[in-house]
Amino acid sequence: MRILLIHGPNLNTLGTRRPDVYGRRTLADIENAVRERGAALGVEVVAFQSNHEGALIDFIQQQTAAADGIVMNPGAFTHYSIALRDAVEGCGLPLVEVHISNVYAREPFRHTSVIAPVALGQVAGLGLHGYLAALDALVGILRERQ
Amino acid sequence: MRILLIHGPNLNTLGTRRPDVYGRRTLADIENAVRERGAALGVEVVAFQSNHEGALIDFIQQQTAAADGIVMNPGAFTHYSIALRDAVEGCGLPLVEVHISNVYAREPFRHTSVIAPVALGQVAGLGLHGYLAALDALVGILRERQ
Amino acid sequence: MRILLIHGPNLNTLGTRRPDVYGRRTLADIENAVRERGAALGVEVVAFQSNHEGALIDFIQQQTAAADGIVMNPGAFTHYSIALRDAVEGCGLPLVEVHISNVYAREPFRHTSVIAPVALGQVAGLGLHGYLAALDALVGILRERQ
Amino acid sequence: MRILLIHGPNLNTLGTRRPDVYGRRTLADIENAVRERGAALGVEVVAFQSNHEGALIDFIQQQTAAADGIVMNPGAFTHYSIALRDAVEGCGLPLVEVHISNVYAREPFRHTSVIAPVALGQVAGLGLHGYLAALDALVGILRERQ
Amino acid sequence: MRILLIHGPNLNTLGTRRPDVYGRRTLADIENAVRERGAALGVEVVAFQSNHEGALIDFIQQQTAAADGIVMNPGAFTHYSIALRDAVEGCGLPLVEVHISNVYAREPFRHTSVIAPVALGQVAGLGLHGYLAALDALVGILRERQ
Amino acid sequence: MRILLIHGPNLNTLGTRRPDVYGRRTLADIENAVRERGAALGVEVVAFQSNHEGALIDFIQQQTAAADGIVMNPGAFTHYSIALRDAVEGCGLPLVEVHISNVYAREPFRHTSVIAPVALGQVAGLGLHGYLAALDALVGILRERQ
Amino acid sequence: MRILLIHGPNLNTLGTRRPDVYGRRTLADIENAVRERGAALGVEVVAFQSNHEGALIDFIQQQTAAADGIVMNPGAFTHYSIALRDAVEGCGLPLVEVHISNVYAREPFRHTSVIAPVALGQVAGLGLHGYLAALDALVGILRERQ
Amino acid sequence: MRILLIHGPNLNTLGTRRPDVYGRRTLADIENAVRERGAALGVEVVAFQSNHEGALIDFIQQQTAAADGIVMNPGAFTHYSIALRDAVEGCGLPLVEVHISNVYAREPFRHTSVIAPVALGQVAGLGLHGYLAALDALVGILRERQ
Amino acid sequence: MRILLIHGPNLNTLGTRRPDVYGRRTLADIENAVRERGAALGVEVVAFQSNHEGALIDFIQQQTAAADGIVMNPGAFTHYSIALRDAVEGCGLPLVEVHISNVYAREPFRHTSVIAPVALGQVAGLGLHGYLAALDALVGILRERQ
Amino acid sequence: MRILLIHGPNLNTLGTRRPDVYGRRTLADIENAVRERGAALGVEVVAFQSNHEGALIDFIQQQTAAADGIVMNPGAFTHYSIALRDAVEGCGLPLVEVHISNVYAREPFRHTSVIAPVALGQVAGLGLHGYLAALDALVGILRERQ
Amino acid sequence: MRILLIHGPNLNTLGTRRPDVYGRRTLADIENAVRERGAALGVEVVAFQSNHEGALIDFIQQQTAAADGIVMNPGAFTHYSIALRDAVEGCGLPLVEVHISNVYAREPFRHTSVIAPVALGQVAGLGLHGYLAALDALVGILRERQ
Amino acid sequence: MRILLIHGPNLNTLGTRRPDVYGRRTLADIENAVRERGAALGVEVVAFQSNHEGALIDFIQQQTAAADGIVMNPGAFTHYSIALRDAVEGCGLPLVEVHISNVYAREPFRHTSVIAPVALGQVAGLGLHGYLAALDALVGILRERQ
Repeated sequence: MRILLIHGPNLNTLGTRRPDVYGRRTLADIENAVRERGAALGVEVVAFQSNHEGALIDFIQQQTAAADGIVMNPGAFTHYSIALRDAVEGCGLPLVEVHISNVYAREPFRHTSVIAPVALGQVAGLGLHGYLAALDALVGILRERQ
Repeated sequence: MRILLIHGPNLNTLGTRRPDVYGRRTLADIENAVRERGAALGVEVVAFQSNHEGALIDFIQQQTAAADGIVMNPGAFTHYSIALRDAVEGCGLPLVEVHISNVYAREPFRHTSVIAPVALGQVAGLGLHGYLAALDALVGILRERQ
Repeated sequence: MRILLIHGPNLNTLGTRRPDVYGRRTLADIENAVRERGAALGVEVVAFQSNHEGALIDFIQQQTAAADGIVMNPGAFTHYSIALRDAVEGCGLPLVEVHISNVYAREPFRHTSVIAPVALGQVAGLGLHGYLAALDALVGILRERQ
Repeated sequence: MRILLIHGPNLNTLGTRRPDVYGRRTLADIENAVRERGAALGVEVVAFQSNHEGALIDFIQQQTAAADGIVMNPGAFTHYSIALRDAVEGCGLPLVEVHISNVYAREPFRHTSVIAPVALGQVAGLGLHGYLAALDALVGILRERQ
Repeated sequence: MRILLIHGPNLNTLGTRRPDVYGRRTLADIENAVRERGAALGVEVVAFQSNHEGALIDFIQQQTAAADGIVMNPGAFTHYSIALRDAVEGCGLPLVEVHISNVYAREPFRHTSVIAPVALGQVAGLGLHGYLAALDALVGILRERQ
Repeated sequence: MRILLIHGPNLNTLGTRRPDVYGRRTLADIENAVRERGAALGVEVVAFQSNHEGALIDFIQQQTAAADGIVMNPGAFTHYSIALRDAVEGCGLPLVEVHISNVYAREPFRHTSVIAPVALGQVAGLGLHGYLAALDALVGILRERQ
Repeated sequence: MRILLIHGPNLNTLGTRRPDVYGRRTLADIENAVRERGAALGVEVVAFQSNHEGALIDFIQQQTAAADGIVMNPGAFTHYSIALRDAVEGCGLPLVEVHISNVYAREPFRHTSVIAPVALGQVAGLGLHGYLAALDALVGILRERQ
Repeated sequence: MRILLIHGPNLNTLGTRRPDVYGRRTLADIENAVRERGAALGVEVVAFQSNHEGALIDFIQQQTAAADGIVMNPGAFTHYSIALRDAVEGCGLPLVEVHISNVYAREPFRHTSVIAPVALGQVAGLGLHGYLAALDALVGILRERQ
Repeated sequence: MRILLIHGPNLNTLGTRRPDVYGRRTLADIENAVRERGAALGVEVVAFQSNHEGALIDFIQQQTAAADGIVMNPGAFTHYSIALRDAVEGCGLPLVEVHISNVYAREPFRHTSVIAPVALGQVAGLGLHGYLAALDALVGILRERQ
Repeated sequence: MRILLIHGPNLNTLGTRRPDVYGRRTLADIENAVRERGAALGVEVVAFQSNHEGALIDFIQQQTAAADGIVMNPGAFTHYSIALRDAVEGCGLPLVEVHISNVYAREPFRHTSVIAPVALGQVAGLGLHGYLAALDALVGILRERQ
Repeated sequence: MRILLIHGPNLNTLGTRRPDVYGRRTLADIENAVRERGAALGVEVVAFQSNHEGALIDFIQQQTAAADGIVMNPGAFTHYSIALRDAVEGCGLPLVEVHISNVYAREPFRHTSVIAPVALGQVAGLGLHGYLAALDALVGILRERQ
Repeated sequence: MRILLIHGPNLNTLGTRRPDVYGRRTLADIENAVRERGAALGVEVVAFQSNHEGALIDFIQQQTAAADGIVMNPGAFTHYSIALRDAVEGCGLPLVEVHISNVYAREPFRHTSVIAPVALGQVAGLGLHGYLAALDALVGILRERQ
């Protein structure tokens, strides 16, 4: 089983950008932790990050055939990238949307996700634990479907 | 460590009410699965369900002193029970809000949670797996804080 | 055939509360008249009233298996009790929503029903006659379906 | 006693237009059934249908003096014909608004009636039974007023 | 000089419909008074009323070439008939919109006119005096333009 | 009979400020024309202008006892001065609101008057003629009431 | 194959009304051009225009059985005639909505079509060419379906 | 004279829940202080608190006949309990709504009270002093009415 | 201790303007009653009224250094004078906003106060008693802070 | 004559992504069909697709001088890319916006185009036929302008 | 060249009112600094401040003929004084609106300026530097126009 | 001191795109003028432009450590790029947002900036002078902070 771990804009600066909101773990810390949990579950995790909306769409299109599911933190694209939404809906893979912080306790524009309606589900506010939870649940659901 | 597992209105009919939306697992199935996972994590899980908003508030107030955290699926109260929100905020315990279905893919009034802004985080759309993910993450975060 | 006749909050004070709006008939008058009409139609009518949202949900859940349809005046819960809506939708019984007064000629917040979208239909503004009309129609439709 | 039975635009195609929504009864079926029920109640029923807003207003104005009440399904005019509303309010006759389908379970623009605020009441979602219920209640109320 | 005096739906019942709002003068009273004032100003007044939106548009189109200006009380069409607005804008004649009652002191939907933006001006709340004022002003402005 | 002619802010610059919108007549031209028309009608016209909201309110309060009606162009205060509205409503005098330009063909914020709901009526878009029309109608209505 | 070419209110004045917006071609020019293109495609084109909403609905109802598709410019009815929408949806024929001008570059109320959601598609802003394009596409799609 | 002192949900935790917002006085402190002030005024104060909307409605209905007025802090029910509003309006007793904190300086959803429109008045932001002020004023007004 | 008692526009006409809404007490009656209560509490009360927004701001600025708190009925300025709000916030004195009538039972625009968010609290609907209550509470709170 | 044929994000997956909505034709099928139609019209068609908003803007800027018009399906960028709108408006070329599906029959956010107001026109819901119609009309209009 | 430097309500308390937001410079500090910069640019600066909307309008009207441009910080009037906007638009002088604090990072009602649409431009958030920048730019633009 | 001068989409076409709105100066003209002013202030200016949102974010992330402040004209990204906002907020550098035209006098969607709330300040409508003013103020503020 192969899971894509995708991060949107500005998440490459995790650990240094606004640690009061996002904590001190770097993107590498998160990718490594998810890869390790994947290994424990017998699942390959392929990580990708970009600040470019188009690059994220390209990546999803290119990886679709070889992947079984997606864990994605779309960053700010969560709130307006209908193009990313269409890519997610179009690829047909189950996707769990993850947010490190509790977006519902922040600015009103962060309360709306244009991607969640085409996702399998969403995890918010649980930091690194949210990624692990998303991976666990996604793999569990994929295995139930088999 | 002691975690409250709270379910709001109509969730006592899980497994029979709208299985197309909520699946075929009963509330007892979910409570047992969460209790088992709690046992594996060394955590006591205390379950409660009510169709009465007041009873849920009473329960939270009475259990606050003896509990460390809450996993709650507030059901329909998610969308309008400011009284429940005040109880959650007032008790001071970290709470993870769980929804079995992906509320963001359903009617617009289900996209808004009055409770999420005072929660630690939210998990939606992952079925039973969402409860286990919420418990894992909540226990993980509580242990990091210690 | 067995029909539930359910009344929401404050309707136990009918006949004394705001007779300019709701008329001088008491709840007992209405329940008796509906029971009599039921008897004439060969239908048992089981009446229930509560000021407690949870008690109304409990009643619907407990009576579902033994009932064929519901005539309900949800009172103020019409406008915000998504929990009651979920109970109605979950029970699967056809329900006719009844309002004594013409809610569309009153305050704007009374123009919206969160329950109507999951009901079979709605009758408003026809006083006691509205209950009898609702019962007649509900029984007629149930018998056509048989 | 003389009751007007008025149908607005497109209701002349009942039985063929969208039978999934409106059923297979034709307008003639409905008019006959209402006339029969009227006869049983000792009431004359005068039926009229038009796709022309102005013709409906003309009819109401011309029939006002000779009529005691109105049962009207305004069709699409329900949602925007303030001119029809003014005709209804101006004629001073008690009117029961009827909808065959449950408009509250359809497109949002069908949830608003510009006519209901000046009507006596409204019946929705009960098919042919709704017309009979409206007639029964209207005649009952008119006789109580005598 | 030739001025069209146009009345929209339900204004043919003036004097009997809602005299509390519109007064006791009939449409004939108003048309006669405006014609007399027109005669005093040396202006021919051609009066027309219809409950049919299409008939009002037809009339405006047919009379455009032979007329110099319009005094119109569009009745309920004021609030939604974009077709009438387009006819007014298309004919190119200066038009004064008249309302007998003060629409700004009534229901909110009466506060918006879709026709006023393409009119020369508007007079509201001045009863019969409003028509005379509109005619005086319209003739005065037309003569200034000559 | 004594009529107050009141002008709000910036109307003292009429004739020079934006003649494309308001024409080339000065405030003195308008006041003189209205006074003359008043003389012809046997009515005294008392004129006042201020850029100060408080001064307009003071003037209305001081003149109430000695006046029979008001013709007022509130200028920009039309759209937000609830204090002026309260002064108008409190004084109890019938008031006709006048606008030189057709406010309904300008910026959206000019389409709303906070004063119109407590006025007798409104005249807009008819330039100087609008003042004369307002005075004629106001005097006519006052004399009918006598 | 038989296609209805329907025009709504005020389109009979094309070529003279607002040529800056709608161009100098008359309705006859457009009907002739569409008929010619129809002839070239082996399709009969039946043209109709009315300023009366009811007449348009009557025409659609009467022609439904004998027609294969509709090209319609609903004019101002585009924005509010739910009755016309219901007629279109009820007749079951594929319809292409055409606008001569680019409605999306005009007043905001012209940006919304109540008819487009039940149409096959829409063409806007392409003048006479838009009608020909609509006919070409409609015939092409109908022939693909055969 | 007999005054009901009613508290809604979560107010039983006063003094411990969010002392930064609500202060350190307990519910007992407040009830005692109000009772003492009542004694000084020669008025009996009957106190009640519940987290259950239905229980508050039951209490109001049961106490209506024996009471002269109500001082109520509806807590979170302020913002959505139309059922409680109907109970207040139905009982006919003058009610002063009290909030300990200044709700207008908190989250936007706390700025709206569904109960205030049927209350005599409202006191907000004055802590314990607000209750005493409400009682003083209520008793003063009741005595003026006698 | 020195308390400012400030009244906004039109409150100088209390007792004569709309006694149905505001009662028959004059401004002098209120100022005297508050001064007397102040004397009983050992507090000097300095009263001021103006119809001029700027004069109210000037007064607050000039009196700030010599005052301990403010009781203010801002009249219509409540709903739009952000300048007055800024003066209140800038002066740093605790302020209790008072309304004689229950603004929440009147026009919707009276339900919003731009001043309340920077006030200590608000009292509405309690007539003269509201002023006394506000003074009592304000003095009580100031003394607790000492 | 040289026409740009531009496709926005995810349209490179046409034929495989959501064939229920977009059909089974691939992007190459569409580009070839448009090129062939272009050849028949004596027009060169230059095709481009990108998932990158910036790349689309770069392409428009670079091709402007050598092109005569644009046929563009902006995909999801239709609904939010003001940057693309500015590029279109800035290049000064006439553009026809094309949508394969009828966007007005889909999610509400697809009903708004930020690009249409600066386009020549729009074609929606006509599949491949819509592109050919757009090209025909664009070329026809360009040739009329010559 | 002569430039007006105008300050609206409460800005006379700069340096003492809310130094956390507005800094510690007084109005005199700002006026002196702008005058000095004006001297360096060869420009006379005339300063004025008032808490009275009417006084600001009077000042602009009186100074228009003798001035070349305006630098204005309208304070709270920014957000609602349409009268001040009309004075600015009416005087015809180019105006740069200045705000000391970044209004876009404060309360939502401070994000809207009714004056900016008729200004030349706006500078916000740059403290004293913003005034100097506004003067530099205004003088530079005026000199380019000469 | 090192200042980044960043331009968003379509600003590379300045001088040719819509000179009526943006003037005839090219981007090179602006960059050179800002660099010269920077040299006069003893500040290095590093210029960058891209039509790619991701490239702008990459640039900000890469330059953060070596820069002291930013002057940015985000072009159309101003109105929707939350990703760019997050990059700005995350980098921690003070930023002045610049717009060449007065965005508040253009289309409504240009009145909102998603970036301004995390900027130091904003300058709009002052053309090239706005950039110089922004640089002056930014350098002045940075030097005051040292």
